[in-house]
Amino acid sequence: MHPDKLRSIMAAVANGKMSIEEAMVSLKELPYEDLGFAKLDHHRHLRRGFPEVVLCENKTPEQIMAIVDKMVERECNVLATRVSREVFESVHAVHKGAEYNSDARAMTITVRPIKRRKGNVTIVTAGTSDIPVAEEAAVTADMMGCRVLRVYDVGVAGIHRLFDRRHDISRSDAVVVAAGMEGALASVVGGLVECPVVAVPTSIGYGASFGGLAALLGMLNTCSPGVSVVNIDNGFGAGYFASLIASRK
Amino acid sequence: MHPDKLRSIMAAVANGKMSIEEAMVSLKELPYEDLGFAKLDHHRHLRRGFPEVVLCENKTPEQIMAIVDKMVERECNVLATRVSREVFESVHAVHKGAEYNSDARAMTITVRPIKRRKGNVTIVTAGTSDIPVAEEAAVTADMMGCRVLRVYDVGVAGIHRLFDRRHDISRSDAVVVAAGMEGALASVVGGLVECPVVAVPTSIGYGASFGGLAALLGMLNTCSPGVSVVNIDNGFGAGYFASLIASRK
Amino acid sequence: MHPDKLRSIMAAVANGKMSIEEAMVSLKELPYEDLGFAKLDHHRHLRRGFPEVVLCENKTPEQIMAIVDKMVERECNVLATRVSREVFESVHAVHKGAEYNSDARAMTITVRPIKRRKGNVTIVTAGTSDIPVAEEAAVTADMMGCRVLRVYDVGVAGIHRLFDRRHDISRSDAVVVAAGMEGALASVVGGLVECPVVAVPTSIGYGASFGGLAALLGMLNTCSPGVSVVNIDNGFGAGYFASLIASRK
Amino acid sequence: MHPDKLRSIMAAVANGKMSIEEAMVSLKELPYEDLGFAKLDHHRHLRRGFPEVVLCENKTPEQIMAIVDKMVERECNVLATRVSREVFESVHAVHKGAEYNSDARAMTITVRPIKRRKGNVTIVTAGTSDIPVAEEAAVTADMMGCRVLRVYDVGVAGIHRLFDRRHDISRSDAVVVAAGMEGALASVVGGLVECPVVAVPTSIGYGASFGGLAALLGMLNTCSPGVSVVNIDNGFGAGYFASLIASRK
Amino acid sequence: MHPDKLRSIMAAVANGKMSIEEAMVSLKELPYEDLGFAKLDHHRHLRRGFPEVVLCENKTPEQIMAIVDKMVERECNVLATRVSREVFESVHAVHKGAEYNSDARAMTITVRPIKRRKGNVTIVTAGTSDIPVAEEAAVTADMMGCRVLRVYDVGVAGIHRLFDRRHDISRSDAVVVAAGMEGALASVVGGLVECPVVAVPTSIGYGASFGGLAALLGMLNTCSPGVSVVNIDNGFGAGYFASLIASRK
Amino acid sequence: MHPDKLRSIMAAVANGKMSIEEAMVSLKELPYEDLGFAKLDHHRHLRRGFPEVVLCENKTPEQIMAIVDKMVERECNVLATRVSREVFESVHAVHKGAEYNSDARAMTITVRPIKRRKGNVTIVTAGTSDIPVAEEAAVTADMMGCRVLRVYDVGVAGIHRLFDRRHDISRSDAVVVAAGMEGALASVVGGLVECPVVAVPTSIGYGASFGGLAALLGMLNTCSPGVSVVNIDNGFGAGYFASLIASRK
Amino acid sequence: MHPDKLRSIMAAVANGKMSIEEAMVSLKELPYEDLGFAKLDHHRHLRRGFPEVVLCENKTPEQIMAIVDKMVERECNVLATRVSREVFESVHAVHKGAEYNSDARAMTITVRPIKRRKGNVTIVTAGTSDIPVAEEAAVTADMMGCRVLRVYDVGVAGIHRLFDRRHDISRSDAVVVAAGMEGALASVVGGLVECPVVAVPTSIGYGASFGGLAALLGMLNTCSPGVSVVNIDNGFGAGYFASLIASRK
Amino acid sequence: MHPDKLRSIMAAVANGKMSIEEAMVSLKELPYEDLGFAKLDHHRHLRRGFPEVVLCENKTPEQIMAIVDKMVERECNVLATRVSREVFESVHAVHKGAEYNSDARAMTITVRPIKRRKGNVTIVTAGTSDIPVAEEAAVTADMMGCRVLRVYDVGVAGIHRLFDRRHDISRSDAVVVAAGMEGALASVVGGLVECPVVAVPTSIGYGASFGGLAALLGMLNTCSPGVSVVNIDNGFGAGYFASLIASRK
Repeated sequence: MHPDKLRSIMAAVANGKMSIEEAMVSLKELPYEDLGFAKLDHHRHLRRGFPEVVLCENKTPEQIMAIVDKMVERECNVLATRVSREVFESVHAVHKGAEYNSDARAMTITVRPIKRRKGNVTIVTAGTSDIPVAEEAAVTADMMGCRVLRVYDVGVAGIHRLFDRRHDISRSDAVVVAAGMEGALASVVGGLVECPVVAVPTSIGYGASFGGLAALLGMLNTCSPGVSVVNIDNGFGAGYFASLIASRK
Repeated sequence: MHPDKLRSIMAAVANGKMSIEEAMVSLKELPYEDLGFAKLDHHRHLRRGFPEVVLCENKTPEQIMAIVDKMVERECNVLATRVSREVFESVHAVHKGAEYNSDARAMTITVRPIKRRKGNVTIVTAGTSDIPVAEEAAVTADMMGCRVLRVYDVGVAGIHRLFDRRHDISRSDAVVVAAGMEGALASVVGGLVECPVVAVPTSIGYGASFGGLAALLGMLNTCSPGVSVVNIDNGFGAGYFASLIASRK
Repeated sequence: MHPDKLRSIMAAVANGKMSIEEAMVSLKELPYEDLGFAKLDHHRHLRRGFPEVVLCENKTPEQIMAIVDKMVERECNVLATRVSREVFESVHAVHKGAEYNSDARAMTITVRPIKRRKGNVTIVTAGTSDIPVAEEAAVTADMMGCRVLRVYDVGVAGIHRLFDRRHDISRSDAVVVAAGMEGALASVVGGLVECPVVAVPTSIGYGASFGGLAALLGMLNTCSPGVSVVNIDNGFGAGYFASLIASRK
Repeated sequence: MHPDKLRSIMAAVANGKMSIEEAMVSLKELPYEDLGFAKLDHHRHLRRGFPEVVLCENKTPEQIMAIVDKMVERECNVLATRVSREVFESVHAVHKGAEYNSDARAMTITVRPIKRRKGNVTIVTAGTSDIPVAEEAAVTADMMGCRVLRVYDVGVAGIHRLFDRRHDISRSDAVVVAAGMEGALASVVGGLVECPVVAVPTSIGYGASFGGLAALLGMLNTCSPGVSVVNIDNGFGAGYFASLIASRK
Repeated sequence: MHPDKLRSIMAAVANGKMSIEEAMVSLKELPYEDLGFAKLDHHRHLRRGFPEVVLCENKTPEQIMAIVDKMVERECNVLATRVSREVFESVHAVHKGAEYNSDARAMTITVRPIKRRKGNVTIVTAGTSDIPVAEEAAVTADMMGCRVLRVYDVGVAGIHRLFDRRHDISRSDAVVVAAGMEGALASVVGGLVECPVVAVPTSIGYGASFGGLAALLGMLNTCSPGVSVVNIDNGFGAGYFASLIASRK
Repeated sequence: MHPDKLRSIMAAVANGKMSIEEAMVSLKELPYEDLGFAKLDHHRHLRRGFPEVVLCENKTPEQIMAIVDKMVERECNVLATRVSREVFESVHAVHKGAEYNSDARAMTITVRPIKRRKGNVTIVTAGTSDIPVAEEAAVTADMMGCRVLRVYDVGVAGIHRLFDRRHDISRSDAVVVAAGMEGALASVVGGLVECPVVAVPTSIGYGASFGGLAALLGMLNTCSPGVSVVNIDNGFGAGYFASLIASRK
Repeated sequence: MHPDKLRSIMAAVANGKMSIEEAMVSLKELPYEDLGFAKLDHHRHLRRGFPEVVLCENKTPEQIMAIVDKMVERECNVLATRVSREVFESVHAVHKGAEYNSDARAMTITVRPIKRRKGNVTIVTAGTSDIPVAEEAAVTADMMGCRVLRVYDVGVAGIHRLFDRRHDISRSDAVVVAAGMEGALASVVGGLVECPVVAVPTSIGYGASFGGLAALLGMLNTCSPGVSVVNIDNGFGAGYFASLIASRK
Repeated sequence: MHPDKLRSIMAAVANGKMSIEEAMVSLKELPYEDLGFAKLDHHRHLRRGFPEVVLCENKTPEQIMAIVDKMVERECNVLATRVSREVFESVHAVHKGAEYNSDARAMTITVRPIKRRKGNVTIVTAGTSDIPVAEEAAVTADMMGCRVLRVYDVGVAGIHRLFDRRHDISRSDAVVVAAGMEGALASVVGGLVECPVVAVPTSIGYGASFGGLAALLGMLNTCSPGVSVVNIDNGFGAGYFASLIASRK
């Protein structure tokens, strides 16, 4: 709350235009409105057209349903990640507009038209097994209004496949690179493009991949400067972060 | 290289306007110019006004001097990180324009005026011990033409210090959060601002901090979506990434 | 055993009021009664009204049933953790007073009225997925006679939710913070309240959370001084420890 | 800030007893006073008589001196940890009241008499090598007004030494156990006493102790319920936490 | 092969008592007989009456059956570990003498009477959940002819239970301590007895126990000198090692 | 593309023997042919007679079927690893020539006769449980045209079994050693043979084997110089690498 | 304390042969004498002739001197490990009988003649760099009265060196194997000898040896049954444990 | 020893051409000559012209000097790694032919002319900081008679530098790739060349590189099949392994 607004409320109280109780109501939410906590989060979504997001892992079907109901009631677009088909079907029985991306295991409900932006987000994967994580990023970027380009299965063992698409990738405002195993693709893409690269390690691999740890460490130690990293398998986080960048344009 | 350009070279050869040897010269660099490898990196710096960067850790004073000489010769602005005062002084004896940020242990040589941009990058630290990493980010962002705001020592144990500055932080195009120990500040800042937050864990701490691992894992597991992470103590990487974002404006 | 008591037994023997064999019986348990081992543990529970506790993980249904039978026979209140619904139902068929907290997966049998104390324990969670661990702490604190306040889903990504409840939390004698992912909530709460904070990392998260390791390390490295930590998912331990503190009042 | 206080300010404004500008001054600090952030921390120390604490590791001598000067100026008692003898001597040259505990590497300046409390804190170590960490805890507890009992070198390899002192230990309001190597002492003490036990793993050991990790994991996995854990070598944290408990009496 | 034997073979060749081909046959197996490899292993079992041991984990039922058939054919006593009840029943259908210890998941076939020795092996556990590992050790020691004493559920949280049995334990020639969680019992037992203690960490625990790693590290870092360690859950190895010691008497 | 070839294309354009459009077609694939990316990989297989390889883990049956169809269409020999029997049977229903090695869980389709080479690859295992990994290596080497010798179950606990076969092993051009647990066999074999040894740690073991980590670290730290290492359970990689060496002969 | 002794004390009190106060004195130490804690440790050394042991790492020269003085005063033989030459020289200035093994960095003072036993302990190393750890074991075994055989530098890369000495090794009552890098030697020795093998990993190695972790894990995962393990570089522990075994003969 | 040789010795004994004692001398070394242990290693070097190798880390100057003296006496070429300049100078004072590669910290003494082979080994590095490890590999390959090509500083952040040299690299018989940080170069090179690639992770990097662990894991998880890995910073091992391959030609 700007000092000006605070001053004007008090002036209204001082000159009797506002009762003390009316002022109390205005000020009741002040610590949070001023700090922008409880509502800011919500406002951010509403104001910028971003969807509300629900991470469904470790939530019961009842909890998910209750949250979705509330969101739809508030007329928010919904993006739910790590949704089983069973849960999707329960939700769909109630909310007919619900859609399911089975690769991403993501559910979306588009209550209000998505606000389209100019930003382009390219999603790149090293292999076909990385696609579920990539699709989670893609669904997220799409729900945030970005244009999404998918460039899948261009890992460094056959690096020509990547170079074939480099002009497309170069036109991005942000690139998401999803890769498991050694995660080397993030560094190579980071060396080729000018825009920021958001690297998302995947848990694809075996043995000394340690559930994505090898790819994670590789990406954190990248020798290419314009690369940052999100958690293993966090397609949503990568798509969200890339869309934040791309939608600034 | 666009097909059009390739076609016009061949047309010139076909109609004799260009000799085969002249075409050879044009095409000689083609695989790299077309792919934009060797030169692109260099061009990227020149075209956008970004400095050339030298990581001096694990390089000998002789190597550093040779690299800096070459860059200055090419009229590039230089940003050298992890530079000891001794090395700086050797360089300064030759390149009088060299400057040293002793907190960041960074050396800069501004051969050509830095191209100023509109972007604001805010650098936030949890404690005073995180300042060296923060300053490395700040120097980097400054050399990339961004306006830099420093908000230091606002860790979560006294969270009011952060809230005091939240309006300033909110006006950023990108925020860098440098924090060691548990690294919780990144999540809190990520929940407060709308712009992307680049988290850089620092090796500040002891015991179960394991050289910054605790902060790194904390930041990767952030519950705030708009946060991505770079390597432990990688102030340069964080500053570079944030500046890439901020300078897109 | 106080020297006085030992001296009086021997005096009774010396003056013939106690036979040697009677003295033998009294002294037989001495090494343990004196040291307070075997019985002390038991006495502690009885004297202070704390329940006997059974960790059911890795025990067979038969073992659990046998232990519970014995405790009820001794007229102890029972708190059993990590109990499957199946096991609960077997026990309930025999001990009708058994109750089941399905969130906590905890079973309680209140054979004797719980001795109510003045202490308040507040249980705080970062997210809804942390509730099972929190409920284990809550059930424990309740069985130990403390008043329990639940403040759930107030993680740092929307920090206003926490501040909304801070006055309630501030009135606690001890606070338990259950959080997974980066576990930052413990540090933030530790910076807000004056009473001791017992942090319990949960295994909620994925990827680089490594089964709660990220939250554990974050909590151990907290920059807020009044915070200590128990094992991952150890809701019982956190509730027990907090109740020990709160019940000293 | 209680609603009553807010209401009274506004009433004063409404009836002209307070000018708008005066109200502005009162409200200016409100978000923090009400939330109790910036000042609360400070107030907590002043109100309860706890010292201000400075972790000197990773701070320059100049920074430490500046912080200490400011604290003394505010008439706060000072506790500085991880202070080298050189730094102590610089401070002592200026602040003659500064004292140095060379085992703990802790410096104290007692500007105002320490408020003595009823609480007893016992500090227990497994070996002589754990004494530096234990002394850091002891100095902290002393500065917080608790009575401190030291029981050193009573590790489990010669468990009789511990039992010899168990009656003394049993009279504590809180116990700190500092142990390196396997850290088993915390569990044994936890099984013997009724009060809360704060375990602090030390980095004493070699090989598979991994800098205190073995002791840390052992303490986190304790089979004794009334035990919680702080960071490796965090004597201050253990002493502070134990004193918070003990001083509630 | 002793030089004498070699010399006598050659003397026999020299004086015609042995043909060159006969000498070839004698010498053919020499490198192995001399080194005692292939047979030694087998001989060791036969000579000392130890059973042949089969680790069944990761073997198919067919492989197990084939190995057991061969051993029985050679009139070896058989000890098979990590045997499912299904596999046991298949074997039992063929070899009626097969017995199953369901706690240990161990199968034994006593083809020849076990050679009884004087050695006593005591198996100690911290909790009831450690019993399966302890029973694997107990079955092994029994099959190796040692007298086995079981002292179960005497963990350090109620240390009197251990002391109650210390005279029994003290009469052992070797002690096996099986403990999970923090594994502190090994150090305490190591401080109480004079004979060697073989510590076997179990995977009992959760969270920061990391599948027995905490107990393993604790045992390796023991402050009691007469303790050595085998792999997590390796009841067989502990029982075998303790029996090697005990049977030397 | 050799400069000569580029020059000759341009000469053909210059003298009208090739139209610009024809030159465009030749040059269209140039960046990749010249760099040898997209086709090189493919060519390598075709030219040298190596099979195309599909890692089926984390691929859907539909994806596998589609890839196999395409390969067979291109007349490539197929090697598919980590294939379930179900997937094999689906493929076999369509491609009758498909064969299944159930130990290795590998599927092969030999469309064109394998080009036989002179190289010998010996596959050695420590135990019987390592055979699946060994067989994956063996199938790979066989499909690459090498002669394969299997020497299984010759672990160091009964080292004579290994020495019995050392002359056979010594005649190899490359040796693959598959071992779990402590992985010591790789070092012992490395000390016995002159040819390169490719060590593949297996995930066989339990407890502190940590899924093959112990064997991996052991092999990386080998004191025998002619040993290199591939990922845990990577039988294909070991077989491929050994065959690359052996087939150079 | 046997019940008989307790009974006789009480009988003496009952019949007036012992005053109550005399009985008090007898019983005062009872809890410890009976449990054998404080004195037992000491008695064990005295009765069996084992030396008192001091781990000097992390102790100050003053502490070491004070401890040694006390031991010599009590006429105990002294074994001090991890002693710098400087500390040795200070001690030697006072206790002329002190001797220094510079390889082991161990100091011994033989106040009373060492009680010689029949047991043989063989100390085996993989390389020359493992000798310091081996010598610590050797000094320990010697001070405990065992005959020590040193077999150094017989690692598996040149396994013949080991076999050359196998008859000598076979005559041991216990074998200590000190090895760094991959630690394979322990398994090989374990497969060759019948007596117990105590494996001590050393921190010799680099890179993925991780300070001895690779050797430690290798030894814990040994496929040879008669092998147990002590902490990394714990030559004393290995020598002590092996001597406990050997001296039972 | 071939059976033929054994037979001929015995025939000579049988027909009196060789005395028994003479045969004893011939046979004395037999167990090792036959098994090829002690001498084979030596013979391997002599026969193939490979140098004897000494790892000087953790050896004293005296030990190094003694070993080198012995080797030179035996007329072996010497390769000593991890040699300080001081040690080199001591050796050089005695053996004037000693040469020092200061980048590699390797000392060589070429007593007999190196046997030149046809094999080409290319050593590739990602950065300039990896050169010490690369030079250790290069010196090794050179001493083993291979032709060495150095391609330094061609990391993936500027991938064109690599492609510039790919024709040179393609002519190799084996490639060594030395890279720290994320180690991605090994996978990229593995995708470009047909010959085996030996990857050596370096400890270059900071933070989450964990001393080369990130590069090591990346290389082990490579998606390019023809890549195997040696220990962190093990330039010697990589050069030796590559030379074994290359010299088979």
